[in-house]
Amino acid sequence: MAEHKSRMTFRVRYSETDKMGGVYNARVLEWFELGRTEHLRELGVPYAEMESKGVFLPVIVAHVEYVGRASYDDLLEIETTASMPSKLRVRCDVRISHAEKGHDIAMGYTVHAVTDAAGKPTRPPEWFQLALQRTARS
Amino acid sequence: MAEHKSRMTFRVRYSETDKMGGVYNARVLEWFELGRTEHLRELGVPYAEMESKGVFLPVIVAHVEYVGRASYDDLLEIETTASMPSKLRVRCDVRISHAEKGHDIAMGYTVHAVTDAAGKPTRPPEWFQLALQRTARS
Amino acid sequence: MAEHKSRMTFRVRYSETDKMGGVYNARVLEWFELGRTEHLRELGVPYAEMESKGVFLPVIVAHVEYVGRASYDDLLEIETTASMPSKLRVRCDVRISHAEKGHDIAMGYTVHAVTDAAGKPTRPPEWFQLALQRTARS
Amino acid sequence: MAEHKSRMTFRVRYSETDKMGGVYNARVLEWFELGRTEHLRELGVPYAEMESKGVFLPVIVAHVEYVGRASYDDLLEIETTASMPSKLRVRCDVRISHAEKGHDIAMGYTVHAVTDAAGKPTRPPEWFQLALQRTARS
Repeated sequence: MAEHKSRMTFRVRYSETDKMGGVYNARVLEWFELGRTEHLRELGVPYAEMESKGVFLPVIVAHVEYVGRASYDDLLEIETTASMPSKLRVRCDVRISHAEKGHDIAMGYTVHAVTDAAGKPTRPPEWFQLALQRTARS
Repeated sequence: MAEHKSRMTFRVRYSETDKMGGVYNARVLEWFELGRTEHLRELGVPYAEMESKGVFLPVIVAHVEYVGRASYDDLLEIETTASMPSKLRVRCDVRISHAEKGHDIAMGYTVHAVTDAAGKPTRPPEWFQLALQRTARS
Repeated sequence: MAEHKSRMTFRVRYSETDKMGGVYNARVLEWFELGRTEHLRELGVPYAEMESKGVFLPVIVAHVEYVGRASYDDLLEIETTASMPSKLRVRCDVRISHAEKGHDIAMGYTVHAVTDAAGKPTRPPEWFQLALQRTARS
Repeated sequence: MAEHKSRMTFRVRYSETDKMGGVYNARVLEWFELGRTEHLRELGVPYAEMESKGVFLPVIVAHVEYVGRASYDDLLEIETTASMPSKLRVRCDVRISHAEKGHDIAMGYTVHAVTDAAGKPTRPPEWFQLALQRTARS
């Protein structure tokens, strides 16, 4: 009963590098967002649609471990899973690796509250919970 | 009857560098925004207040000439002026120089439409036009 | 004898939006870079390889016209062409449009110097000039 | 024998907002970097100088808890302390609060390796260790 895992690839942009020659640390959180976006799309609940229905998932915790080096134009792979550690929280676990050389680049997670458009905490809608459970079963 | 010119200083962030060792080109447009923000504050029409009153200034043209090198932690100066080339347009001219070494880093301009919150073009409110004219006279 | 035109698609990231609800203006210059990267790859002179051979193309002019709205997760298309307006300059012309709805989002260009790793202007190597000419002929 | 704590203030940039109306999550890691830069300057070991001497502090772990809301142009305060949890690691603890309203925005930490320009792990130089100890005593 493993969770559904999404995979996507992307290339490191020049804008994501810094003077140390590799990737600037904060950009990895932007990649985590790429992974989430594709994962929710695969689960059948695209995040753009969720927001248009008034369901928001602001980040409340972010954690990244930087374990390997990535350079401009490298092809990387993101793996993302989502779960609900409690009735009011969504958690995404992410692993980024080098698509060609295979080594890990970064891993970590984000924890999300569920709110309405005004930022007020709400319970996640049933269709959202079902989407996460369905994939956990498959 | 020269236009009012605002000046502010800031330091280059590590996040603004790229693997070439200097500043990534798109960051300079973010600095233009810093200059606009301070300029509108000095004119007595802080942009955060303008938006809360329903007046938005989306960028419709941006132009940058990169003329000198800036490095991480360098102290830079931005000079900004604002004008209305037509009844429906606001233009900001910007010059960024090295605050200690004196050489120019970049210059350019942005042109802005005036819209409401829904993005519909509107005439700039009278208080906004007056703020720009007052400073042009002083 | 039209210039070779590269096309690629990408989705708007959440990190590229701003509080106005659309795309933050400076991000479009990062998209221009995406277009250049793919264009140089198609011409057979990937930019990552160029830099590893000591040939750099720093941006010296950037110009953007913002003509249409893009939102988070929209699928956009970039078209890029490259030319040499003089023996020492490379110019990339870019058009970004909405891949599904068809309307234009932004167009503009960047002008690049050609330098060595130390930032000293140089003539573009013959293999680079040939790559641009070959595609112009095809 | 409390550690030296640096404080600096800065304003939220428009470029740091996202379509949810507040600050995009990854930008907070860029603010952590602002805090580190000022902290190391106060300790007498400016990071730009450290890199020019061949001492680099790449981020190997980053952790952020987002606890309050910040908006465009809000004046925020960063408090930063640095310590050495082991002979080979530097840790910066950061707290960001609203400078006018007082509430906390985010807190967290980064852990850094110490490397040479080629990315090879090294022991931190004695002058760096002394700078951290001196302030811990004061």
